[in-house]
Amino acid sequence: MEKAVQWDELVDVLVVGSGFAGLTAAIEAAELGKKVLVIEKMKRAGGNSIISDGGIAAPGTQLQADRGIVDSEKSMYDDMVTAGLGLNHPKLLRTLVSQARSAFEWTVDALQVPYLDRVDIFGGHSVARCYTPQGVTGATMLKRMLKRVAELSIPVLYSTSFRSILTDNQGRVLGGAVLREYDYRTNTGVPAKIRAQRGVILASGGYGADVAFRSIQDPRLDETIQTTNKVAATAEVLKSALHIGAASVQLSQIQLGAWASPDEQGFGHGPLFADYILFQYGVIVDPSTGRRFVNELGDRRQSADAILRIGHPCIGIADSRAVEHSGWDISRAIRKGVVKIHATMDELAASYGIDAATLQASISRYNGFVQDGADADLQKPMVDEASPIEEAPFYAMRLWPKVHFSMGGVAINERSQVLDFDGRTIKGLYAAGEVVGGVHGASRLGSCAISECVVFGRIAGQNV
Amino acid sequence: MEKAVQWDELVDVLVVGSGFAGLTAAIEAAELGKKVLVIEKMKRAGGNSIISDGGIAAPGTQLQADRGIVDSEKSMYDDMVTAGLGLNHPKLLRTLVSQARSAFEWTVDALQVPYLDRVDIFGGHSVARCYTPQGVTGATMLKRMLKRVAELSIPVLYSTSFRSILTDNQGRVLGGAVLREYDYRTNTGVPAKIRAQRGVILASGGYGADVAFRSIQDPRLDETIQTTNKVAATAEVLKSALHIGAASVQLSQIQLGAWASPDEQGFGHGPLFADYILFQYGVIVDPSTGRRFVNELGDRRQSADAILRIGHPCIGIADSRAVEHSGWDISRAIRKGVVKIHATMDELAASYGIDAATLQASISRYNGFVQDGADADLQKPMVDEASPIEEAPFYAMRLWPKVHFSMGGVAINERSQVLDFDGRTIKGLYAAGEVVGGVHGASRLGSCAISECVVFGRIAGQNV
Repeated sequence: MEKAVQWDELVDVLVVGSGFAGLTAAIEAAELGKKVLVIEKMKRAGGNSIISDGGIAAPGTQLQADRGIVDSEKSMYDDMVTAGLGLNHPKLLRTLVSQARSAFEWTVDALQVPYLDRVDIFGGHSVARCYTPQGVTGATMLKRMLKRVAELSIPVLYSTSFRSILTDNQGRVLGGAVLREYDYRTNTGVPAKIRAQRGVILASGGYGADVAFRSIQDPRLDETIQTTNKVAATAEVLKSALHIGAASVQLSQIQLGAWASPDEQGFGHGPLFADYILFQYGVIVDPSTGRRFVNELGDRRQSADAILRIGHPCIGIADSRAVEHSGWDISRAIRKGVVKIHATMDELAASYGIDAATLQASISRYNGFVQDGADADLQKPMVDEASPIEEAPFYAMRLWPKVHFSMGGVAINERSQVLDFDGRTIKGLYAAGEVVGGVHGASRLGSCAISECVVFGRIAGQNV
Repeated sequence: MEKAVQWDELVDVLVVGSGFAGLTAAIEAAELGKKVLVIEKMKRAGGNSIISDGGIAAPGTQLQADRGIVDSEKSMYDDMVTAGLGLNHPKLLRTLVSQARSAFEWTVDALQVPYLDRVDIFGGHSVARCYTPQGVTGATMLKRMLKRVAELSIPVLYSTSFRSILTDNQGRVLGGAVLREYDYRTNTGVPAKIRAQRGVILASGGYGADVAFRSIQDPRLDETIQTTNKVAATAEVLKSALHIGAASVQLSQIQLGAWASPDEQGFGHGPLFADYILFQYGVIVDPSTGRRFVNELGDRRQSADAILRIGHPCIGIADSRAVEHSGWDISRAIRKGVVKIHATMDELAASYGIDAATLQASISRYNGFVQDGADADLQKPMVDEASPIEEAPFYAMRLWPKVHFSMGGVAINERSQVLDFDGRTIKGLYAAGEVVGGVHGASRLGSCAISECVVFGRIAGQNV
């Protein structure tokens, strides 16, 4: 086949995708002298990486030591296994936690990514181990990666969609068929074939925006469910790997954000209010019954599943004291109308069609639990600063889950080589980042996705 | 390709597997005049079907009406969605519940399967809708199916392993490559090719015994975890379908039995004690701490996950009053040493290396909850006949989960046609039974697997 194909382009390494995983792999391969080509189906680089907050997790850093934070690879491993319900692939997770610190240091030393002088903790992590770039956006790191890509003269072909993997008759990957001048609205472009002599690295991200693909695995996630992802987060590259025999791992593990609002697109501004104020200090009620139905501080998966079972958006409510006490600035969510302010609880009830008397009874019952320090109905753990919901005005937000992250993807080994269902490597095929399955198991913890992109992007770029 | 291949056998329909799904499909296709061949890799028919208890679920039957049991398709649908955590494919589940009654009646009328004069209820079903064959074994129905297969002169080739699906260059399925005189211990046999002019029906069962395949999806399920399945429950036929582009559905949804004993092979006799006596009336403790850690009446998935998290077998304990009250005969489990009898709680503790004082404290605390009618630690719902654990001798069993059922498999439509990831049918390819994914979602309810085999086996046989 190699000789029969008319190749339009000849490189050592073809990298599919220009988010953190793809650019990292491209940089590492080019540093080792490989001729690298990056393709990106959209008009700009960055995929979902650029719209993230950019936080990266790593244990045992100097920033932690400076603050007396005691952390270890084992602690991060255990936290991720707890969140992942034990479904994490042990070898991949060990690789991640053992290389996260050097990956983080590489972003500082080699890429000069500027980080804020702080260490953050997110839900599910037992200690603070998250480092946030200046601007609190993935754009900060992406800009530095693109700078390094330019210094290394790595070409990035935009509007180029990867369609299929080309192999020889032994199954070795030779390269890929692509569509150049790609228009994702019409799904058309100009066919071309790229020969990649050392290998193809898939770094195409997740399938959160691919309604057909995700709803085969989780039929609840049909077109009525939005996503925090970019529209480009679709499965065609993943499918091209499955098509040549790559093993799929845990495709039905798809993370939903329970903190999302149906009244805005994408991630939006509502989650700040939901995740940082109302889950701690407020309640979620079903508007059709006026009653609570879920422990508001349960894990992400439980809350989202419970709201989906209700079958319609639910109402999150907190009072003024909670908002003030939290210290968070939710003015953008209010300005956009995602969080609404109500002078009285009766007005709030009327605004969402909730029976006012039942709602008031639910709030009073919850306030009793706050006084008791124990939630007899739903076992919500009462935080120390919990206070009754009583101080007008009241803040409310509609809640309806959005697809946030694909835990599933292709199987790889610790060298980022793609595996088939019999555990054999597919020669010449590598993968890194969200397109890979198994690192996070049933649920990904915040800031661990970027660690995964950089760790496995580096491994893929070094091994290809 | 069709002309290039040297076919060793020419039939209309090739059925892969001789359990309930395969034999049902073969019978239906032969009744419609097709020339059918059934292949079975083992030396005898029946797969996991023959070792099941044979119970089949259906709503709205005469047996229910005779007993004044009010049931409906909607009720069965809702029960299965609740157990399946909403992951059930709606169209497939609707097909199942709407055709379960006629499938059950077909086994009575066409196959003459003799059922006991009773209607049973199993966990997760909201009403009694399960029909148990004489002998409480799948062998009863299998015998009748084989009788009908013989009457219809359908050949069944034993020791014949299906290896790969052969297609033409448009992707239409032509037939399959098999190994005859197959020896599963050496995984060898004599190659042959079978042309199936109308289609191939995959009815090869689940992958509960395929350690490599299942542990890609759930790494906890390595070789240290046993299975209730036959050794033949491996994934090669499922993989052959994935290899030609069939969509996989929810492969990581694998059901564990928390009621299993590591001290016997297969399903065994311990589950009768565990599931019907100790979960209701007793406690499960971690021998390393002497404490309870899970609601013993939580769902199957929660209990199994909790025991796996503990990391070693746990001890289930009930007292003599519970065993007597239950009315179950557990003598076989006792004879085999799976359930042990201890004269005192101290002796029981010593036998499992549990600190006796801590164990006694745990039992006393639990007995207090029984008196209160509420479990303040783990929220186990106290059954009406709950009584304190105090009547010597005490019965104990080691608990360690076994793989029981594969909810995942290939995607099909309501006509049992196998689908690719874009929702297109793969021409000439059908599937039925446990090899199919999506009907049960996250968890299968007892007796619904046989309904699935018969309903989709009939559909496949009629449509091929």
